[in-house]
Amino acid sequence: MLWSGWGDPAKASELPEPIRALLRDLLGVRAPETRAVGIEEVRLPAVTLPPPVLGELRAAVGADHVRCDDDARVRHTRGKSTPDLMRMRAGDGSEAPDAVVLPGSHADVLEVLRICAAHRVAVVPFGGGTSVVGGLTADRRGFAGVVALDLGRLDRLVSVDAESMTAEMEPGLRAPRAERLLARHGFTLGHFPQSFEYATLGGFAAARSSGQASAGYGRFDDMVVGMTVATPRGTLDLGRAPKSAAGPDLRQVILGSEGAFGVITSLRLRVRRAPAERAYEGWRFESFQAGSAALRRLAQEGPLPTVLRLSDETETMVGLARPGEIGALASGAGCLAIVGYEDTGESGPAGAGEDGAGGTTTGTGGGIASLRERVAAVLSGAGGVCLGPEPGESWARGRYSAPYLRDSLLAAGATVETLETAGFWSGLPRLYDAVRLSLHASLGSPLVMCHVSHVYGTGASLYFTVVTARSGDPVAQWETAKRAVSDAIVAAGGTISHHHGVGRDHREAYAAEIGELGVEILRGIKGRLDPEGILNPGVLIPPL
Amino acid sequence: MLWSGWGDPAKASELPEPIRALLRDLLGVRAPETRAVGIEEVRLPAVTLPPPVLGELRAAVGADHVRCDDDARVRHTRGKSTPDLMRMRAGDGSEAPDAVVLPGSHADVLEVLRICAAHRVAVVPFGGGTSVVGGLTADRRGFAGVVALDLGRLDRLVSVDAESMTAEMEPGLRAPRAERLLARHGFTLGHFPQSFEYATLGGFAAARSSGQASAGYGRFDDMVVGMTVATPRGTLDLGRAPKSAAGPDLRQVILGSEGAFGVITSLRLRVRRAPAERAYEGWRFESFQAGSAALRRLAQEGPLPTVLRLSDETETMVGLARPGEIGALASGAGCLAIVGYEDTGESGPAGAGEDGAGGTTTGTGGGIASLRERVAAVLSGAGGVCLGPEPGESWARGRYSAPYLRDSLLAAGATVETLETAGFWSGLPRLYDAVRLSLHASLGSPLVMCHVSHVYGTGASLYFTVVTARSGDPVAQWETAKRAVSDAIVAAGGTISHHHGVGRDHREAYAAEIGELGVEILRGIKGRLDPEGILNPGVLIPPL
Repeated sequence: MLWSGWGDPAKASELPEPIRALLRDLLGVRAPETRAVGIEEVRLPAVTLPPPVLGELRAAVGADHVRCDDDARVRHTRGKSTPDLMRMRAGDGSEAPDAVVLPGSHADVLEVLRICAAHRVAVVPFGGGTSVVGGLTADRRGFAGVVALDLGRLDRLVSVDAESMTAEMEPGLRAPRAERLLARHGFTLGHFPQSFEYATLGGFAAARSSGQASAGYGRFDDMVVGMTVATPRGTLDLGRAPKSAAGPDLRQVILGSEGAFGVITSLRLRVRRAPAERAYEGWRFESFQAGSAALRRLAQEGPLPTVLRLSDETETMVGLARPGEIGALASGAGCLAIVGYEDTGESGPAGAGEDGAGGTTTGTGGGIASLRERVAAVLSGAGGVCLGPEPGESWARGRYSAPYLRDSLLAAGATVETLETAGFWSGLPRLYDAVRLSLHASLGSPLVMCHVSHVYGTGASLYFTVVTARSGDPVAQWETAKRAVSDAIVAAGGTISHHHGVGRDHREAYAAEIGELGVEILRGIKGRLDPEGILNPGVLIPPL
Repeated sequence: MLWSGWGDPAKASELPEPIRALLRDLLGVRAPETRAVGIEEVRLPAVTLPPPVLGELRAAVGADHVRCDDDARVRHTRGKSTPDLMRMRAGDGSEAPDAVVLPGSHADVLEVLRICAAHRVAVVPFGGGTSVVGGLTADRRGFAGVVALDLGRLDRLVSVDAESMTAEMEPGLRAPRAERLLARHGFTLGHFPQSFEYATLGGFAAARSSGQASAGYGRFDDMVVGMTVATPRGTLDLGRAPKSAAGPDLRQVILGSEGAFGVITSLRLRVRRAPAERAYEGWRFESFQAGSAALRRLAQEGPLPTVLRLSDETETMVGLARPGEIGALASGAGCLAIVGYEDTGESGPAGAGEDGAGGTTTGTGGGIASLRERVAAVLSGAGGVCLGPEPGESWARGRYSAPYLRDSLLAAGATVETLETAGFWSGLPRLYDAVRLSLHASLGSPLVMCHVSHVYGTGASLYFTVVTARSGDPVAQWETAKRAVSDAIVAAGGTISHHHGVGRDHREAYAAEIGELGVEILRGIKGRLDPEGILNPGVLIPPL
């Protein structure tokens, strides 16, 4: 993983000339005046962690698994939001942890938490490091130091229960390896977010990740049927059945807690049969409104395909749904939808219908043909025109490419960032307008693109990508725009995040969303599980 | 609602002779020596609530809406578990509230909670009064009195959002009226638990109800997309989107909280199109094991019908799946499954696949024929024999009759009670055996019947009915057996309740299930929302 950008530097893409022209002529983007620094130039603060504490940590997890070297510290500094990357490229390592600790077991995690609680050391659980909401930057005030708790050594597929179709897996498993391990048993999680190549299972759970195939396989929080959590007060073991009426669902308290309540050390996850057949195709709608209505109909009356996304007019024009072919501008009017089918069982493709939407299955014989036919009938009836497999396959090739594209845009001098929200169907037009208006008011004339990324029976999510010319202080420029657009989302009745999470960046908007008493619930839980407040301080819960 | 039994006394059924013979000859049940008392004979404790507090409550909600008369107090004493009914029939009104308060609005509820918190008066939220787990009996110790907060006046369908397919409904709505109000808009909730005739929407949410058609429509907790909650500390407004990554799902904290955290005053619920067509049928399997395997296959690979339940050999023999025809003993060997199909939309019947199972939809044309055909293919392939519609229609006619049947059995001198659990598929055989062994060990030779009541991709629930001869102290007899079987469920890895809830009766087993830290989470939340601890004290959370 590139320390100051995304993924494998070898996969960085050159921007095609039409995009360069768009940046230059439409947005007024200029090549940056300063070059990005090398990793050795990053300015790191002195390690403040007292040596005896480091000694205790080394005794707990082994000396090799406590690292204070510059390279480890830089690579555990912040996440992958655009402001994070801008700060790193400017050589600002001010938020680096003092040390990186790599526990090898649940017992190790308990012991590290005990030591850190005793010495008031803040602990930032670290999975793939892909947070885009400031989820990996602890508030140092009042602490003797900060350690990044890297869960990379907890990377086993512990067991598979083929009868229950569940697997026990460890939190440090990166998604591709998790898929490879499950594939040996004929299973898949079916969780493919844009961060797939680097993100970990623990991060998916802690931040309520949602993937590109969530229409078919469900969100990650739907997949978690059990978990073990290490806290400074001991161990939580949750999940004895798929569903229960025994009190509040405490799994749902840990899911989305972003390391502020405890460290997930094991997950029992629902698995599906690995698909025997996959197909993706493109559909064109006259307008975002018409396309949204078609998606709503699929979500409410079925059948749901496995993948379903709809770009608005601007995103369609720029071709962002197909990052591999970006720049094939003006590829047609209207809005492009990507529709995908994956066949995971004898009687049909994955179909979650996770909030009780129509659900998905094919006809009697397996395979995807019947489902595809029925989805096509709905989409055609709603005014859609099938573009055949090419746009779908192109989307599939580029499905993890957007973060690489961001690196190229940043290098070209643009500011580019994404944000997302969700709401009920009847409120989506207002939410869409509010976000666009706010971004235009803050940033002059940015390029604002949007797609419906996930659908449910009662609502959907909207995922925005913003590209704008950079001001003299691009971090401050974006942060000002981000505050305004977050306020606009809250005011328009949307949730501040559909799948990125809260972190530090959404903390105040989140507090406004759940209200004072909602924040009190979080404080009440944290006070019991983490009375010293060492777990990811500053994330999720506003300081008092 | 009968104060000492279930429902409309006019619907009480006479026990057929084969059942009387079974009770007499097989179980040794004898006619009770003492007659049940009349309502006017119930012994009530003196009202301890100070008159000034009653005055404040009257000022808050109107004098007509604060009742201290014996009739109101008796009708708000306890719930509908068998020990509850036994105590009521014996004239024991010792757990009656001092007063019944009927708020007319969210603001009324806030004010009542404020008054009660100021004077340390315990508040028991009361919907349909159908709890079977001691959810309506407050712990009086340390309180100036107890009021039952009857939500019956909060009974409006506030609004319908047809585009989002949601409805805002008040908690005091009983299910049949809720369905009638929604039917005017062409919608249904699709929630049909055995308590349907009397239970309320607020109770469904607070106790995580699950209905007979949950395979198709989902559990009630799946239907709740938003809620307003009154607490002693103020108002919680939750749910801005179907799903969110903004922190823990706080709706899931209130769902299942059984009135211990707050009073639900409004619900935003997902609705479905009212079905145009319904059909139910019976299937026979050679054994419970074979039938369970068939259900598992439907849950994991689809397609799921709308209703799916499987009786074990004993329940099949007694005919309990069809209470209207109970006593048609020895109606064939093996195990009876009830399979139902309801058509709620153009592209297919309700299919929730709520934990991401195969999901449900028919073929292209609507109607239930295609789904029925595909389900039949799976069931036949798994060794099932279709018995045609008669057993299904018979089940549908008697679907709310079992509680009436219990009254008749109690009157005949038997002890009859139900209990339920859920687990992952691979653990179900052990759970099934553990419950049966425990009941036999406690009760000699009881009649123990079981059915799989709900299925998920990763597991299922087991619902047990126990009939036994009565000892000299039948309440103590059952409570001893209940403690043992609860311990057995916990030891076998099951959850203590799949849809009845925790109340007081499952409190200790629940604490064992979620562990000390789980209980600490509950205490942390309660401490913030209800610092004086007035809300349903003694329910859900073990006293310190």
